Amino acid sequence: MDIKNYVKNYFEQIDWSQEPKNLYAPIDYALQSGGKRIRPTLVLMAAQLFGGDIEQCIKPAAAMEIFHNFTLLHDDVMDNADVRRGRPTIKAKWDDNTAILSGDAMLIKAYQYLEDVPADKLLAVVKLFSKTALEVCEGQQYDTDFEKREDVTIEEYYEMIRLKTAVLLAGCLKLGAILGGASEEDAQNLYDFGIAIGIAFQLRDDYLDCYGDEKTFGKKIGGDILCGKRTFLLIQTLKKCGVSQRQTISQLLKNTAIAGEEKIATIIDIYTQMDMPTVCNEAMEEYYVKAMASLAKINKTDEEKAPFVEFAKNLMGRID
Amino acid sequence: MDIKNYVKNYFEQIDWSQEPKNLYAPIDYALQSGGKRIRPTLVLMAAQLFGGDIEQCIKPAAAMEIFHNFTLLHDDVMDNADVRRGRPTIKAKWDDNTAILSGDAMLIKAYQYLEDVPADKLLAVVKLFSKTALEVCEGQQYDTDFEKREDVTIEEYYEMIRLKTAVLLAGCLKLGAILGGASEEDAQNLYDFGIAIGIAFQLRDDYLDCYGDEKTFGKKIGGDILCGKRTFLLIQTLKKCGVSQRQTISQLLKNTAIAGEEKIATIIDIYTQMDMPTVCNEAMEEYYVKAMASLAKINKTDEEKAPFVEFAKNLMGRID
Repeated sequence: MDIKNYVKNYFEQIDWSQEPKNLYAPIDYALQSGGKRIRPTLVLMAAQLFGGDIEQCIKPAAAMEIFHNFTLLHDDVMDNADVRRGRPTIKAKWDDNTAILSGDAMLIKAYQYLEDVPADKLLAVVKLFSKTALEVCEGQQYDTDFEKREDVTIEEYYEMIRLKTAVLLAGCLKLGAILGGASEEDAQNLYDFGIAIGIAFQLRDDYLDCYGDEKTFGKKIGGDILCGKRTFLLIQTLKKCGVSQRQTISQLLKNTAIAGEEKIATIIDIYTQMDMPTVCNEAMEEYYVKAMASLAKINKTDEEKAPFVEFAKNLMGRID
Repeated sequence: MDIKNYVKNYFEQIDWSQEPKNLYAPIDYALQSGGKRIRPTLVLMAAQLFGGDIEQCIKPAAAMEIFHNFTLLHDDVMDNADVRRGRPTIKAKWDDNTAILSGDAMLIKAYQYLEDVPADKLLAVVKLFSKTALEVCEGQQYDTDFEKREDVTIEEYYEMIRLKTAVLLAGCLKLGAILGGASEEDAQNLYDFGIAIGIAFQLRDDYLDCYGDEKTFGKKIGGDILCGKRTFLLIQTLKKCGVSQRQTISQLLKNTAIAGEEKIATIIDIYTQMDMPTVCNEAMEEYYVKAMASLAKINKTDEEKAPFVEFAKNLMGRID
């Protein structure tokens, strides 16, 4: 069976029908949402690359997916988001408190899914998991901090998305590499591949928030604009445009009198004038090339590494 | 140096001045709040009872205190509480989102504080920690569920406070026992001691919410009443009183037109009429006796176990 289906089937058979129902039913709902399961798939792909057994790695792989979904529950409370992947969020379907507490339980559950790894790998696995998880929190904090700052540099932005998005994908790959028995060097190169592809992934997410199709994107277009998020498009536009345009954008973002739809349309219009689709695609391409360079260093044949190239290509044209 | 001071000094020297500041400063504030450090003290007391080295156990002991404070951050968001231990809560001093995200980071940090335990104990320690943490979430969920139910039985109440409060104290004791090298049987008896004393502790907390001194209690009197919490006092009063009084209480709790202070005074008045201070103290005594019975089974001398008797006695007359 291919990895994707294996992961899909694995999640379908997890039973969350425990008591208290109001704690576990939201977890079930969150995990049955039909996301792409990118993260556990990456764990298994990496494990397989180094000769690991997929069945023995599925629980730690699932831990990464559970962790990822935990972050979504809490992010949706913090961002006050009612729709995710085209469905009501937990906070919308239940309430904020449910999203907070069920999220907490998911984070702990994720750790429980690491308990069965071989004893000689437990410390490395738990360390990697906690380090990654904490970095994701740090990324989320920077993202929030940046909403209140107008002077965020592109370097700060890249560091923020490295933490918020890329380290988790890279962490999944490294987890699989550790479980599969990779050398430290190969594990690090695969991690670096994950960082670069994760940054490209987030750039695409920023792009799709403005230029995506609401149906396939699963979220409302322009959400980042309404939240005042410092996205790649905004930072690069502010960098590129003149002083008067900078003021226009700044005032527009702060303006609460203007309707959301109008604000979104006006800002996207400025982005387009500033050629942001091209600028953003060039940046994605840059990180795609970096990812391929890291992948090339890994001591495996091109054929063995082909699934990672395919994954990277898919990511450039798809969304989770 | 005695354990309490050792713990106190340990927490004073932890440096939380990392970036992003908005993530770590609230953690620093939460952990410098001057709580009684009951939980890490219990870990070290238990470790010492079985011959463990205190310095080698301080980090996992600290993990329990960090975990406990994580729950407070999120509880205060969920309960909309602005004051804790006589100071503004994180959600009041910063905001809800800060309390959520810094809380998440604390939970992960707690796991990181377990990383240095001896390799042959890591799995047992991580398992105990996750099991305990998840049970605390389950207890919190039951507590929330019970607010919407009028038919909560005293048995359901005891199970709820076992999960919400007692398992963490018991988990601290078991953690120390594991680290100190106790037999499974001794570790279990110490755990059972912790469950009984934890239940007595929560009964006292319910009692103090109505009959405590606001200054030493650190929270506003009557908070449980305003939240509609199903406390020992409420459940036992509803059990004891007649049908018409039951209706009076039920309507009073739901009444949003009446001022909070009046509601609190009226409800406490009914509790007093129903002899709740005595009923509550008898229940505490019952669990104190159970705790002593479990302690007696542990294969150590009375002198060695004396600190646990003293701890239990203190707990009956003190608060965290």
